Amino acid sequence: MRAVDLIRKKRDGLELSNEEIGFLVKGYSEGDIPDYQMSAWAMAVYYQGMSARETADLTLHMAASGDMVDLSSIHGIKVDKHSTGGVGDKATIVLGPLVAAAGVPVAKMSGRGLGHTGGTIDKLEAISGFSVELGKEQFFNQVNDIGLAVVGQSGNMTPADKKLYGLRDVTATVDSIPLIASSVMSKKIAAGADAIVLDVKTGSGAFMKTLDDSIRLASAMVDIGTQVGRSTVAVISDMDQPLGHAIGNALEIKEAVATLRGEGPSDLQEVCLILASHMLVLGGKAESETEARMILKEKLESGAALDKLMAMVAAQGGDIAQIKDLALLPQAEILVEVKSVSSGYIESIQAEEIGIAAMILGAGRENKNSVIDLAAGVDLRKKIGDSVTIGETLAVLHLNKEHESGQEEAVNRVREAYGISSEKVQRRPLVFALVTPEGIKRF
Amino acid sequence: MRAVDLIRKKRDGLELSNEEIGFLVKGYSEGDIPDYQMSAWAMAVYYQGMSARETADLTLHMAASGDMVDLSSIHGIKVDKHSTGGVGDKATIVLGPLVAAAGVPVAKMSGRGLGHTGGTIDKLEAISGFSVELGKEQFFNQVNDIGLAVVGQSGNMTPADKKLYGLRDVTATVDSIPLIASSVMSKKIAAGADAIVLDVKTGSGAFMKTLDDSIRLASAMVDIGTQVGRSTVAVISDMDQPLGHAIGNALEIKEAVATLRGEGPSDLQEVCLILASHMLVLGGKAESETEARMILKEKLESGAALDKLMAMVAAQGGDIAQIKDLALLPQAEILVEVKSVSSGYIESIQAEEIGIAAMILGAGRENKNSVIDLAAGVDLRKKIGDSVTIGETLAVLHLNKEHESGQEEAVNRVREAYGISSEKVQRRPLVFALVTPEGIKRF
Repeated sequence: MRAVDLIRKKRDGLELSNEEIGFLVKGYSEGDIPDYQMSAWAMAVYYQGMSARETADLTLHMAASGDMVDLSSIHGIKVDKHSTGGVGDKATIVLGPLVAAAGVPVAKMSGRGLGHTGGTIDKLEAISGFSVELGKEQFFNQVNDIGLAVVGQSGNMTPADKKLYGLRDVTATVDSIPLIASSVMSKKIAAGADAIVLDVKTGSGAFMKTLDDSIRLASAMVDIGTQVGRSTVAVISDMDQPLGHAIGNALEIKEAVATLRGEGPSDLQEVCLILASHMLVLGGKAESETEARMILKEKLESGAALDKLMAMVAAQGGDIAQIKDLALLPQAEILVEVKSVSSGYIESIQAEEIGIAAMILGAGRENKNSVIDLAAGVDLRKKIGDSVTIGETLAVLHLNKEHESGQEEAVNRVREAYGISSEKVQRRPLVFALVTPEGIKRF
Repeated sequence: MRAVDLIRKKRDGLELSNEEIGFLVKGYSEGDIPDYQMSAWAMAVYYQGMSARETADLTLHMAASGDMVDLSSIHGIKVDKHSTGGVGDKATIVLGPLVAAAGVPVAKMSGRGLGHTGGTIDKLEAISGFSVELGKEQFFNQVNDIGLAVVGQSGNMTPADKKLYGLRDVTATVDSIPLIASSVMSKKIAAGADAIVLDVKTGSGAFMKTLDDSIRLASAMVDIGTQVGRSTVAVISDMDQPLGHAIGNALEIKEAVATLRGEGPSDLQEVCLILASHMLVLGGKAESETEARMILKEKLESGAALDKLMAMVAAQGGDIAQIKDLALLPQAEILVEVKSVSSGYIESIQAEEIGIAAMILGAGRENKNSVIDLAAGVDLRKKIGDSVTIGETLAVLHLNKEHESGQEEAVNRVREAYGISSEKVQRRPLVFALVTPEGIKRF
């Protein structure tokens, strides 16, 4: 078998066999197939696409290129959740305790962030003492004991995907739905999930800007799940503005805790309830979404969900006093109010711009070596549909002295991220569609 | 400027500026842009094509990537000829003396062959003592003195094209008309031609199998010539069977000399007269093709064309006794007749198969280090349209003892290359179309 023949085959729109895809992934991963052949193949895939069968094969070969986590020593159906990413997305920190409280085991491996804010792991490290490095046995035991653990990714997972993603990034071959779908799903499968709930973001602040593209990506991922025997559903949720009010690591922990107390922003709470409902159904703890939602609401109201978070924090060495009293979490030295220069109704909030402002204040990493300022970030006081008058506060910036030089730029970016209309503006729906193996349901 | 942005731009079907194309060619040539970006770009070009302007810009940047030959010290309009290659194509060896005899200076730089037979340079080396390595001044002086010189390519010409061609070969991006056209034309432009006559082969033995594709390629090359100010015309000629009867280095020299004596195969003579007519018109030595043909026929009949070949052979140290008496050229030890196993009319001759048979007998290079057997080759006794009876000779193989092991395979390949019909078969046209800056003329 020669790589050039497989590139030509894909170039001409033909389907590659499982063996041929395996040859490419293994050869590339082991360095026998050079970057220049793989990038030409990826560009051919960009134009010709891949069949559902090819995409599933690619996913499995990439998953198998490194360590495969075996979660079989954890009791129950392990349901993983993945978000395609957005600004202010702290759903995992709410969802984990919430579904664990309802009896679905959560053995979560999460990443650090490169971008606007940290990843889930970085956010949890805002709690002093919290350790994300557990040994494998400790990790499994904790999930069996309290139902929940969140750790950093370790070992050598999906190296073929990492190598291919790095190549796609510099060869303009990122925007291919089968390649994106197989990249996401290969990681979930290597992480050992039995079932997967996907949160596919759509809108200006998401990777997929249009609903149609988001649905296409969701369908490709659900198809992979079906092909490889992992129940998968995808929720298409709004990212035309940040989720909730907080952007920044400690700020997002506070907002997540508030949500677990039943005092969080309604959009964040609703998205978490929807995602958690699907997790409960896939995890066999509810017959229907309606039943699941009742169970979950009870877990929020009774405090059981918050207790689960505290149990995890305690088990992983974190200071639960900071959860009980959020004022003990890292606090920024300087608060700066961004005032509105006009009156009317909030029509749009460019999530990406808010994210960049948060990064300028120190909340995110510009490169791998950046140190995150856990206290820094942006607290949105107005969301789409809210009314505003001149001089009223749109958002509050949280920053420490060392990032004061970025204050002016951050203020301008946040102010300009807001679009204000003189007409009354409808609030946006939170969820646009649900994609399951049975089909697509638009709301 | 970033390569990834230019790949994306082309991927999305947009036109790159001259500056952007220059950035890619220079960056790739100098090693700043890696193979994996260039191959992704080439694949995007495969799908999106390039505008005439982009193709011309690419051509000029590749031509300028290495040495540019300055032929200005040679008097007159220098007309170069290029063939897209085929089996048994010895036209250059006929054309050079023929047009030189008519007053068009021929300063030809030619390559060695990798494939069925050697290149023009290899063929000329069948004449003992003939040197293809002349110093620049000697080369120019010889053309000014006798009107004709053929030398091997030296120096560092079009390194960007060489590097890109090598990459395309292993990434399934060869079959792109703008990339093929710019590759050919960059070499002609770097070689200093004022005007160019292209012989674009079409048919089963050619790179372009269909007439439409051949016309597309020819048009792309003529467009480049027009854009960069070099008068260019293209003749689309048949390669559904080998040209002439001889395939092999010394065999082809013999056939070329016979043609210059007016005793060559009619197809070879006719293609040479057509190509030479266009060279005369572009070189300003005739007003029309009709006038050019009259001049050329006179040069053949008077022996002036043959005298020109002998003058060149003498000037480059070759033994003109071998031209006067062709029996003195390298002769193979063994002649093997390939007999027909059926009666009827020759319907097809797979040129590629004949070429492979010649290579097996030692006439071509399988790799860069192969040594060519100058005497080896295939002499076709039957061409399309000829009648044949059982037991009659289709072709004669010429080989030396050291290649006897390949004899059986060569016999089978040559026999199977012939298609024989019981019905009478029309002879094929030699030329299908002419492409000039004014348009396409089909015959």
